[in-house]
Amino acid sequence: MRIYGDLGSGNCLKVKYAADVLGLAYEWVPIDIMRGESRTPEFLARNITGQVPVIELADGRCLGQSNAIIRFLARGSALLPDDAFLQAKVDEWLFWEQNAHEFFVAGARFQVVYLGRSVDQVDRLRIDRGNEALDMMEKVLGSADYFVGKTLTIADIALLPYTRMAGDGGFDLSIRPNLSAWIKRCEDVLGLGAY
Amino acid sequence: MRIYGDLGSGNCLKVKYAADVLGLAYEWVPIDIMRGESRTPEFLARNITGQVPVIELADGRCLGQSNAIIRFLARGSALLPDDAFLQAKVDEWLFWEQNAHEFFVAGARFQVVYLGRSVDQVDRLRIDRGNEALDMMEKVLGSADYFVGKTLTIADIALLPYTRMAGDGGFDLSIRPNLSAWIKRCEDVLGLGAY
Repeated sequence: MRIYGDLGSGNCLKVKYAADVLGLAYEWVPIDIMRGESRTPEFLARNITGQVPVIELADGRCLGQSNAIIRFLARGSALLPDDAFLQAKVDEWLFWEQNAHEFFVAGARFQVVYLGRSVDQVDRLRIDRGNEALDMMEKVLGSADYFVGKTLTIADIALLPYTRMAGDGGFDLSIRPNLSAWIKRCEDVLGLGAY
Repeated sequence: MRIYGDLGSGNCLKVKYAADVLGLAYEWVPIDIMRGESRTPEFLARNITGQVPVIELADGRCLGQSNAIIRFLARGSALLPDDAFLQAKVDEWLFWEQNAHEFFVAGARFQVVYLGRSVDQVDRLRIDRGNEALDMMEKVLGSADYFVGKTLTIADIALLPYTRMAGDGGFDLSIRPNLSAWIKRCEDVLGLGAY
């Protein structure tokens, strides 16, 4: 398997973390989106949206969208419960992450880290809605160690990268103790150091 | 099964269309989000995000996020292919819809239909990114009747409601013949009249 991605992108790191903890063999192909490498004809043939990450299977078939990829890779493992309803609860978080978290929390960071803005210049919508998303996670983690069930699943892997890097975009994790403890818990399971 | 939803919301209509075409029995419980009915303590106990749609199973368990719901309901039916990779290709579109389509195309419509703005007052981000999303669908549908495989799946059901109502937010479907033909094709399969 090949993984086309950018190690600075949380969406790509989700795939790396899942593949690593599952012990999957892969070749990492670095793609620099700021240099247009995800918009070449060759890349668009792999993913018409021009987005990373993309995985390419040995037979040449390709799959995009970080959460679709980690859900595919996690089949049959402890990262995705067998029970259909619990799988749906994992999906609930995966879709929430893409709709109510990533655009705001990752978007704020993108403006700082990739576009070079100062934290004060990040647009208000991203900050306000990003804080709402982080507050909701803080509340949920007040009574749970992980988002679904009692062990780490792809729901946690989907939410972890942009949450642990949220400070880059101006969000304050130190005021959210449950969230901070969950980040550390996930980092320990995944064998990651602190960000 | 109960479905808590708003028949004016595309996210809720996805669940209705899927349940109807699958022949599932359900009670529709109308929720008026503009009157705060999705923010009551009772509702938040069903879905902490305060969003519709939500389904409630006979045993009281609840599930939110439209695409998680239709994926759960479609298990084992022709709306979700059996093959794991094809399921992942369906997921790819479901996540793309929540990340690159809904926020913009549905968001523009929300500003007009729910907030009472004129089409000219819809914010530029929603219009520009919404047009990008619709253009990409138009391109894909130039060589396919449906988004995954040769028959209707939940990928089409997820993309249909806000796309067919896109004109409400100021988007022009008449300049996109492939998209218009796909809308008609889906409406025929689902037994819907024109919007």
